[in-house]
Amino acid sequence: MQKYKVNFLPDNLSVLVEQDKTILSAAISAGVYINSNCGGDGICGRCKVILKQGQVKSQPNGIITPEDRKNNIYLACLTTIHSDLVVFIPDSSRISFDKLTPEELEERLSGLYSKTEDIPSAKAKLEDKIFKHSPFATKIYLELPEPTLDDNVSDLERLYRALGDLGDFSGISIGLFNIRQLGELLRDYAWKVTVTLGRRNNTVEIVLIEPGDTTAKNFGVCLDIGTTTISGQLVNLNSKKILGTKATYNQQAAFGSDVITRIVYAAKTDGLERLHNAVTDTINQIIIDLVTENKIDLNDVNCVVCSGNTTMIHLLLSMDPAHIRRQPYVPTANFIPVLRATEAGIKINPRGLLSCVPGVSGYVGGDTTAGVLSSGIYQKEKPSILIDIGTNGEIVLGNRDFLVACAASAGPAFEGSGLTCGMRASSGAIQKVNINKKDFSVQYSTIQDKVARGICGSGYIDLLSEMLEAGIIDKNGKIKIDHKRVRSADNGKEFIVCFKEESRSQADIVINEADIENLKRSKGAIYSACAILVKHLALEFSEIGKIFVAGGFGTYLYIVKAIKIGLLPDLERSKFIFIGNSSLAGCRQTLLSNQAMAMAELLASKITYFELSVDPGYMEEYGQALFFPHTDLTKFPTVKF
Amino acid sequence: MQKYKVNFLPDNLSVLVEQDKTILSAAISAGVYINSNCGGDGICGRCKVILKQGQVKSQPNGIITPEDRKNNIYLACLTTIHSDLVVFIPDSSRISFDKLTPEELEERLSGLYSKTEDIPSAKAKLEDKIFKHSPFATKIYLELPEPTLDDNVSDLERLYRALGDLGDFSGISIGLFNIRQLGELLRDYAWKVTVTLGRRNNTVEIVLIEPGDTTAKNFGVCLDIGTTTISGQLVNLNSKKILGTKATYNQQAAFGSDVITRIVYAAKTDGLERLHNAVTDTINQIIIDLVTENKIDLNDVNCVVCSGNTTMIHLLLSMDPAHIRRQPYVPTANFIPVLRATEAGIKINPRGLLSCVPGVSGYVGGDTTAGVLSSGIYQKEKPSILIDIGTNGEIVLGNRDFLVACAASAGPAFEGSGLTCGMRASSGAIQKVNINKKDFSVQYSTIQDKVARGICGSGYIDLLSEMLEAGIIDKNGKIKIDHKRVRSADNGKEFIVCFKEESRSQADIVINEADIENLKRSKGAIYSACAILVKHLALEFSEIGKIFVAGGFGTYLYIVKAIKIGLLPDLERSKFIFIGNSSLAGCRQTLLSNQAMAMAELLASKITYFELSVDPGYMEEYGQALFFPHTDLTKFPTVKF
Repeated sequence: MQKYKVNFLPDNLSVLVEQDKTILSAAISAGVYINSNCGGDGICGRCKVILKQGQVKSQPNGIITPEDRKNNIYLACLTTIHSDLVVFIPDSSRISFDKLTPEELEERLSGLYSKTEDIPSAKAKLEDKIFKHSPFATKIYLELPEPTLDDNVSDLERLYRALGDLGDFSGISIGLFNIRQLGELLRDYAWKVTVTLGRRNNTVEIVLIEPGDTTAKNFGVCLDIGTTTISGQLVNLNSKKILGTKATYNQQAAFGSDVITRIVYAAKTDGLERLHNAVTDTINQIIIDLVTENKIDLNDVNCVVCSGNTTMIHLLLSMDPAHIRRQPYVPTANFIPVLRATEAGIKINPRGLLSCVPGVSGYVGGDTTAGVLSSGIYQKEKPSILIDIGTNGEIVLGNRDFLVACAASAGPAFEGSGLTCGMRASSGAIQKVNINKKDFSVQYSTIQDKVARGICGSGYIDLLSEMLEAGIIDKNGKIKIDHKRVRSADNGKEFIVCFKEESRSQADIVINEADIENLKRSKGAIYSACAILVKHLALEFSEIGKIFVAGGFGTYLYIVKAIKIGLLPDLERSKFIFIGNSSLAGCRQTLLSNQAMAMAELLASKITYFELSVDPGYMEEYGQALFFPHTDLTKFPTVKF
Repeated sequence: MQKYKVNFLPDNLSVLVEQDKTILSAAISAGVYINSNCGGDGICGRCKVILKQGQVKSQPNGIITPEDRKNNIYLACLTTIHSDLVVFIPDSSRISFDKLTPEELEERLSGLYSKTEDIPSAKAKLEDKIFKHSPFATKIYLELPEPTLDDNVSDLERLYRALGDLGDFSGISIGLFNIRQLGELLRDYAWKVTVTLGRRNNTVEIVLIEPGDTTAKNFGVCLDIGTTTISGQLVNLNSKKILGTKATYNQQAAFGSDVITRIVYAAKTDGLERLHNAVTDTINQIIIDLVTENKIDLNDVNCVVCSGNTTMIHLLLSMDPAHIRRQPYVPTANFIPVLRATEAGIKINPRGLLSCVPGVSGYVGGDTTAGVLSSGIYQKEKPSILIDIGTNGEIVLGNRDFLVACAASAGPAFEGSGLTCGMRASSGAIQKVNINKKDFSVQYSTIQDKVARGICGSGYIDLLSEMLEAGIIDKNGKIKIDHKRVRSADNGKEFIVCFKEESRSQADIVINEADIENLKRSKGAIYSACAILVKHLALEFSEIGKIFVAGGFGTYLYIVKAIKIGLLPDLERSKFIFIGNSSLAGCRQTLLSNQAMAMAELLASKITYFELSVDPGYMEEYGQALFFPHTDLTKFPTVKF
């Protein structure tokens, strides 16, 4: 097969690929990450590249304009390679893998709201004081008596006997690897060893046997595996201290921005493998960064717990997620047995264990279980709601007696995907907007105060709220003013947030009526899911005790504006509690406590999954939510424009 | 490093090896098996080869005679390679890997005694009727209900639910491999699958999930791993039927003939690996032969149980056996957790399980536990003795209240090793001997009626008994007659059993006074071990109910002659029961019954190990047994010469 060299600029990275491969596939091989929200189907138009040199063939499509063609602009996913190429990837087509700054990260994990409005943080309540400290991996130092003719039980029985003196380890298991090294280890180190015990479902396993006393070196990692962002924490399993936190984008984003496109991609040749590799690469980089910064030996990380939505866990474990998206939406497994981390490609101590917080159903995963665990709604008398806003918005309503969960296909709009100028909440994204109600001038701030590159989710919430208040759009989302910032375009009218002269970008940053429609559908999905759940349980919003808002919703979210656009229900501000990354917090609890993991298992089997799409009232409720804030304004009494 | 080609004749097998490697090591690489009882230390003189061509260097030693040198005869273990070589391996230096004939095998497994004397066989009692049929691996066919929106639990939970309907499988475990294939398998085969469940210590594991109903195909293998011979049986786990039995020599014999030389060899570079490979090669060949003859797919063999002495199990599992031979004789492990067979290099279904019958101590292994199990001595009221005659002679004395075991270092003499004309009980070995009491003419028969090549253990027992009766030797084992069959040699006087003209061999087949001394020490070790055990428990031989004689003691053993030379105690013939390969029988019981395995575990922890070497009376008892039949003739009232 003829092979060609493709050189990507400005990175100047080259790769040798076979004829007929797409530029997108070549870019992935070269380690150059190009946007591809649709997973390479030629639909999203995010993967435009400029051909500087060489011969290609491109499938016809409606996205490349005649002007694009003149400028040698192609869709990387639909363009195949027929000679050596030089390809330039513009900034707008590039996935930003900037790591979050410590400040951004703190915001992302804790929620920003508490900084701007004076609502008490529930963080204190999240601390795992209710669960006894009994970490996933425990180290025990043993000084064994040397064998004599009167006491010559085998080395392994000697070890078991010493453990038995400390507690009930009757069902303990051990692998051949550890048995094989036992004889030499015990004798070389004067019968003084440290045994690492790991929980393995209903049994306890001897994970490691190390010479001498290494009990001080016992670390674990908890990971929240989100569709867009992966967050990890390194924890000292003895002291429970969090040694560091890292978050970075899930490299799977290169294969589609939501779980559905990922599931579709997984069905392609090598698709599952690529998605698996992308997520483990991301995880391993997080772990490496965490141990390096803390000067810890990777071999002293003995266990990992992951929480993630059901599709993310399937992809992590190379389990086929295909049936999650087909009725009746059945995953391969919600409860995953404890594995060795290396079985999932996660690099810690080669014998270290991996546990996944159990999920509820195809669209309510272990991240939701972990959120229920850490929010504590399962302990309260009064029904509460947990809203985890992400590409897939999970909502749980319940108390100590019942827990019902549903998943709203919010879509990736609030993560900046699928919109004309949408982008993820990374450097250069407009995240806060104020519009002068008289002259419609726009003030905005961007993440890291960089030159504006686009608008992220929180920016869109601010923008919609401000446009409604300024009367730029009506309750339907239609632009109704005449102004130099308003002009007609292919997708209806558009409002110019930022002229290209201001942003020094290649084009004006705009929001058009199609974008507004898209956002309206997203906010409508989340609100109506909440409303249907409340109704399904014969409750009123007024009867709800607390609303816990969780998730990696950009780095900024202004709750008042989220209510104004009808994303969140119109309740007293004091009812809302931002709990940041509730999945990661719950995941950490299970890492540190056997009882917390047992509770997570109980919760996952206790939570009832409610399939929204089969509720006869859902479509009507959803339809009513397709207004700003809502068709029925009595539901939003405090919202006035 | 310079490499040379070594061609072995008459096989015409060649191998490329590095300069300075020994001819023995080259032979092993080429797959040519040369005798090497001492494990390559240049002591046993079994590895003589004839150099036909090429340059070698050989260490000086007392075994190669000037005449050998003239004939270009070298010790393969002490001779290094310094050019391309052509090496001829004479028959006498060759390990015979002839498989036993079905008849020989039947003899080997059941004991020959019952054929020649009318003592009731205990075989019927050996059948595992006392244990409930609950095999190591069980297959269950399931027809799962197809998921609906009202019943959309995950695939794995659906499987668990169906199993839960059939019994208590609460602690069930499953590996990622099986989970990964679950979604496609269930859907491709209309939700009809067969689940193979395996006992895994205290839990049950889903070993396999197969499409459709495969319950009919559920096979297991039990293996007795002896120092010299490995025997295996293929068993239908549903019907309990034995489909076939195979026995062959342990290929480890090339590295030394007893456990001590193997342990020493294991400490050499690659030694443990070579020994491990030799035993797994042997086992895999047995299994392949069994499934091929029975037209069974190797993948339908789902489990293996092994019993063997502690060193054999260590070598099988690549566990360092070094400390078994050093005081206080501590093995790495007596109780081995259930493993995947492939972890030990055993080739059955890649997910199939391996269990080892638990052992008692460094010199009383799982083969003894299995023997106790199958002999049933642990159920009897009256104390019985189990004597397993092998290179390491294990003796167990006990009843339903107590069980005490010891190991007698009988040495390999009764397996034909370490004697001038000794050989294993394979084709051409003299196994039966009659001597005319007047003219001292010798009648003998050989295994497979081939030309005599040497004498095996049972031949030596006959020979000694006949020589005593004919007055050729005295009670000390000294040759006391003048005759054309008697002549002086380096090792004292020797008796010519067979002139080379008769046998058409290269030399006369003889027994000398050193050989007799050697045999006397072996029989003395076994007898005195029995005697000490009986004494240790304040019993008399007369109080013993039954004596179960087990083991792979050649293909022939004449009990009366064994008593005459003082190998077995002088008791009524009706007290002796030959039970053949009791280790294999017990091993099969554990394969077929969970309860039998639980009983084996109980027995292994209940059997008390008695270390002979530390008993103050042992040396005296042993010394008294160094006569034919014994110093104290009152102990052998029926023996008269």
